[in-house]
Amino acid sequence: MNSSTSLKVRLPVLVLVFEVVMIILFSLFVTYDDNANARLQNNETNPMENSLYRDYPYFADVQVMIFVGFGCLLAFFRFYGFSGMIFNFLTATFAIQWAIVIQGFFQFYYDGKIHLGVVNLLNAEFACAVVLISFGAVIGKTSPVQLLVMALLEIPMFSVVEWAVLKYIRINDAGGSILIHLFACYFGLGVTFVLYRPSLNKGHSKEITSYQSDILSVMGTLFLWVFWPSFNSALTLKGDDQHRAVLHTFIGLTSSTITAFALSAVFNKRGKLTMADIQNVTLAGGVTVGATVDMMISPVAAYVLGIMGCTACFFGYRYLTPFMARRMRIQDQCGIHNLHGLTGLISSTAGICAILLATEETYGPSMYQIFSHRAPPAGDPKLLELQKLIPGLKPGLGRTAQEQALYQVAAIFATIAASAVGGLLTGMVIKLPFMASPSDKDCFDDDLFFDVPSDFDSGHQALISYDEKLQMSSIDTKEVSKSV
Amino acid sequence: MNSSTSLKVRLPVLVLVFEVVMIILFSLFVTYDDNANARLQNNETNPMENSLYRDYPYFADVQVMIFVGFGCLLAFFRFYGFSGMIFNFLTATFAIQWAIVIQGFFQFYYDGKIHLGVVNLLNAEFACAVVLISFGAVIGKTSPVQLLVMALLEIPMFSVVEWAVLKYIRINDAGGSILIHLFACYFGLGVTFVLYRPSLNKGHSKEITSYQSDILSVMGTLFLWVFWPSFNSALTLKGDDQHRAVLHTFIGLTSSTITAFALSAVFNKRGKLTMADIQNVTLAGGVTVGATVDMMISPVAAYVLGIMGCTACFFGYRYLTPFMARRMRIQDQCGIHNLHGLTGLISSTAGICAILLATEETYGPSMYQIFSHRAPPAGDPKLLELQKLIPGLKPGLGRTAQEQALYQVAAIFATIAASAVGGLLTGMVIKLPFMASPSDKDCFDDDLFFDVPSDFDSGHQALISYDEKLQMSSIDTKEVSKSV
Amino acid sequence: MNSSTSLKVRLPVLVLVFEVVMIILFSLFVTYDDNANARLQNNETNPMENSLYRDYPYFADVQVMIFVGFGCLLAFFRFYGFSGMIFNFLTATFAIQWAIVIQGFFQFYYDGKIHLGVVNLLNAEFACAVVLISFGAVIGKTSPVQLLVMALLEIPMFSVVEWAVLKYIRINDAGGSILIHLFACYFGLGVTFVLYRPSLNKGHSKEITSYQSDILSVMGTLFLWVFWPSFNSALTLKGDDQHRAVLHTFIGLTSSTITAFALSAVFNKRGKLTMADIQNVTLAGGVTVGATVDMMISPVAAYVLGIMGCTACFFGYRYLTPFMARRMRIQDQCGIHNLHGLTGLISSTAGICAILLATEETYGPSMYQIFSHRAPPAGDPKLLELQKLIPGLKPGLGRTAQEQALYQVAAIFATIAASAVGGLLTGMVIKLPFMASPSDKDCFDDDLFFDVPSDFDSGHQALISYDEKLQMSSIDTKEVSKSV
Repeated sequence: MNSSTSLKVRLPVLVLVFEVVMIILFSLFVTYDDNANARLQNNETNPMENSLYRDYPYFADVQVMIFVGFGCLLAFFRFYGFSGMIFNFLTATFAIQWAIVIQGFFQFYYDGKIHLGVVNLLNAEFACAVVLISFGAVIGKTSPVQLLVMALLEIPMFSVVEWAVLKYIRINDAGGSILIHLFACYFGLGVTFVLYRPSLNKGHSKEITSYQSDILSVMGTLFLWVFWPSFNSALTLKGDDQHRAVLHTFIGLTSSTITAFALSAVFNKRGKLTMADIQNVTLAGGVTVGATVDMMISPVAAYVLGIMGCTACFFGYRYLTPFMARRMRIQDQCGIHNLHGLTGLISSTAGICAILLATEETYGPSMYQIFSHRAPPAGDPKLLELQKLIPGLKPGLGRTAQEQALYQVAAIFATIAASAVGGLLTGMVIKLPFMASPSDKDCFDDDLFFDVPSDFDSGHQALISYDEKLQMSSIDTKEVSKSV
Repeated sequence: MNSSTSLKVRLPVLVLVFEVVMIILFSLFVTYDDNANARLQNNETNPMENSLYRDYPYFADVQVMIFVGFGCLLAFFRFYGFSGMIFNFLTATFAIQWAIVIQGFFQFYYDGKIHLGVVNLLNAEFACAVVLISFGAVIGKTSPVQLLVMALLEIPMFSVVEWAVLKYIRINDAGGSILIHLFACYFGLGVTFVLYRPSLNKGHSKEITSYQSDILSVMGTLFLWVFWPSFNSALTLKGDDQHRAVLHTFIGLTSSTITAFALSAVFNKRGKLTMADIQNVTLAGGVTVGATVDMMISPVAAYVLGIMGCTACFFGYRYLTPFMARRMRIQDQCGIHNLHGLTGLISSTAGICAILLATEETYGPSMYQIFSHRAPPAGDPKLLELQKLIPGLKPGLGRTAQEQALYQVAAIFATIAASAVGGLLTGMVIKLPFMASPSDKDCFDDDLFFDVPSDFDSGHQALISYDEKLQMSSIDTKEVSKSV
Repeated sequence: MNSSTSLKVRLPVLVLVFEVVMIILFSLFVTYDDNANARLQNNETNPMENSLYRDYPYFADVQVMIFVGFGCLLAFFRFYGFSGMIFNFLTATFAIQWAIVIQGFFQFYYDGKIHLGVVNLLNAEFACAVVLISFGAVIGKTSPVQLLVMALLEIPMFSVVEWAVLKYIRINDAGGSILIHLFACYFGLGVTFVLYRPSLNKGHSKEITSYQSDILSVMGTLFLWVFWPSFNSALTLKGDDQHRAVLHTFIGLTSSTITAFALSAVFNKRGKLTMADIQNVTLAGGVTVGATVDMMISPVAAYVLGIMGCTACFFGYRYLTPFMARRMRIQDQCGIHNLHGLTGLISSTAGICAILLATEETYGPSMYQIFSHRAPPAGDPKLLELQKLIPGLKPGLGRTAQEQALYQVAAIFATIAASAVGGLLTGMVIKLPFMASPSDKDCFDDDLFFDVPSDFDSGHQALISYDEKLQMSSIDTKEVSKSV
């Protein structure tokens, strides 16, 4: 074992310092929001109208996605199941805490305090999802220390970009196609570009699945699939908007899923199904409907978007990922560029089309709620008129559809640029020598960071006996025998 | 490998044609329902009263049952875990889409359009559950192409029967004992009767479980168990009806579960527990309370129904299933006749008793809401009186308890007859030569339709070494060695 | 196989007698509560305000925790996965039924009937959680018969203590730190003290995990982690109280989780992570915030409590559990004293501090709702004043903070004493000869109570070949070979 990958000092020190910082920040800045503050309850507040009951069901569903869904999905390697599942757990809990504070400063800060409610936790889980998606690009070749440092840097960068885009560019992106998926994707690609390991381009003997790891990973896919409508609709407006978000996500996922099966069979040499396609490509529809998820795009559009996203994602896995690894020094381990990048781009484009095509005829006066920046500005007599029809409509910026579309384009480019640069910088930091980065040989191996049970080694043994016996040098054999 | 089971052309062509049809139907006929239509929101609609919030929690629970629960439960074969779980995923997504349209025409069609809301998705998942139950009868010996064609035929037949029974016979069946469980069961038996494979009656060397597949299957059982109250109560009236449905289902499941353990131990040769009993028989109570789930049957009746259903189901597995396979050419792979047929019959009978015993003394005026066909017809002065007590009570047919009971009997026979005939016809279609049906030898084997990881074959190898070495002919040995 | 462990007669007889008793009790005493009773619905009841919609979401989450979460967590032994998962299933369903009736008599009994609603089921699941926690102390060395008898005795004892503490001592304990965790822990320790097996102190060859069992157990942890906020908040007051309960639990869990990782790495010889820490210690924060979960303790306090509970739990596993086994004859198999006892004590202490520090300045008039025993007694003019601010405030006992704190202390000691004595008595009962208790050699082995699939024995074989070959006597070898 390479002693430089011991977590004995590095991980505890990092966690300890982080906890001290968190305790200071929490005690100075974090208080309850109005819905969680006992002092603000009185004879005019109705307990059953507490925001908890609007947010918590979606929060609970997203919890399952983050911890069980992602955790199982990332456990797809045969000798890296512990790491995939457990590093996901560690990174997620770490990132969420950090996001509560950092995102809190940008979005929930007033009167000198971050105001904490379940809605913050929900937003923090979305920020956490960004980190976990990026993790997918470098899974198998990073230490938990590197992952925590990545989370430490990515959360603030994401929070700044999110805040700047929402506050200054002001876009429609209910399902997070731009801010979540594109950001996470290009950040992850930036990181993996810096962490490039030429020797892994030839493939690694442990970069394989097992029967059980494939099944576990499919379970992760199924949990993500099942709750994706909650993910895409968690932050929309309540009522019909959220209703459409659920419908579109579900429809997009179903069309995406059957397309993935069809493509998997047709491009398989022997006309069989490939588990990796089912684990990943089936989910493409969920991302692809993201940017338009609350709009009146019509059910058939969601159906077609699911097929398009799935197709792009499938061919991305087949041709683009290998190309990027060989020619562009971008080793995208889970193919996040296919599942989040390509689909995110299609989704953003669809969002722009939907914005250009939106009319009051289709949306009624609600149009100015969904496309809130197109609402007349404060003082405009049209606003007053609309407010009679839609009480509580907030003044907007009076943008035209074309203007809004241009802002969306700006947001796409700004997000991609910022995330890629952020990823590159982060990659440079976590490449520093004291980050416990595994050697090439030790990648994709739980043994490096975990006390493994006795049957784990016999797995190695089996692998060696059946698949590699002939290729192994006598030195390697000795080493392995020793460890059994 | 038998080249005639390649999915390379068949599956993609089927999916492609289906998708084209779906796109046409969606674009011509599918629009948003009122709760998902932005144009219909105004200053009189309250976003928080959107139907989404009434339906979505139940929909989400049913999603977990369909995709995770069924998926894991059907992965109980040692060499067929991929197929069980993944064909369930494929068939379910396919069936749901199809049901959205077909069921939509029968139940949600007006003004020339199918109106789409989460309630359609919920109904479509129930139709999908029907297909998945039928799938249980033929698991292990069907190709994905056959399963999709089965879904393609079963969904319309189910929709017609459901529509006809609800519109013309008009029954009480909140938990779907008749329309879901009996239909699914006898349809599946019809299919498997046609697909009869005599050689499988002697047992198949791969028709076994493994330690991991048994655990996975129990996880499926647990997810089904946990969310069954949501399944049975999803489509009842809101309020006390739904409340009772949850209570009855839970009570029925608990009494059924401990009964299953007791029977499993007493009928095991060595007084041990049998996993197959725990995976299946424990769930019998959930089906058995189905037809009476929203009625005032009293908690003790739910308790007793759970015990009765469980007992029938257990002995069905033990005696009836082998008998049907040997003497009636009906190979019921998962024993759906026990878990859905026998229990469904008990449940339907209990429903008839509950109808005959229902009095205004027990139910109050709500009786005419629960047994809506017993409400006085429009114009009857008694109706006006009742409407003062229960605002919104709809006019009924003025049926007596005895009349309603007779209609229930008619519905049971009509459903069984229609589903059995439908199953036979469907079986004939999917027995056609180009359906990629596996040979007897290749049944229960993931290798036929999946690219399997390298440790899968060593599973074969182990199987052969330990269990079959002595029985194997030299020809088989050669073949297997080759594939390792 | 030892014939005295056959379940053939014992288990069925026990279940049969129990079912007869249940049917009698159900038919004599159990009826619907007002929210589930059709007869009580009229033109003044609003179906959507049925208590079902307040309770069922939390019930569903707790269901997943009890059946899937606990079930997977307890399946962590390599050769005891069936038993861990299935005995959990059996014991839980048995305990819940029993709790519905017994707890029903103490808490939901009026007009000569137990009134049944989802809120009873929720309370029964909490009672069931108590039994399952105690089960953790004796897992691997008890038969299902013993577990059922334990449940049979523990549920009434728990119900009495719960009722006496709530009715006479009257405490604040929203998350159940005292009544659930401390009771369950010291009851379990009492049982295991009586069941002491000296030979197991040297370790048992089957007391190990496997790669798959570790992953399964982590999945259990993740499900518990994800839904723990629902568990801790299920029985609080609605509104801001429940909101805070969710926030505190989540924050406590996140800080607890990263602390567990840090401690795991720093105390591991080679600086690696230990799965047992991740499976158990990460959850400590959820228990530790229990007693204060609905109070205005401030978010930072929840954060610190998570760290403290986790630290105590970690060192408990490391030092206290082995010490207790060696010196005090207390073999605490899952370390429930660490995860529920130590954390419960910290939590209770924190609860006392929070009570002493509570002021009207922080809580506003809601203080008298949260600390309901501090509300002025009926007739006090201050009560009328407060009721203007908080309509529906119930008269209390007019206790001071110091008085309430003393009552909390009394409740802690009373609960610990009662549970330990109850556990000792229960241990004596289940040690009786006809309880099918496994021999020392057969502990931690599924083969004793289950028909295991053929690959289970090859697991044994592997274990023997790799780990024990040298230590085995020739007699044992023969026995094992025979069974392969």
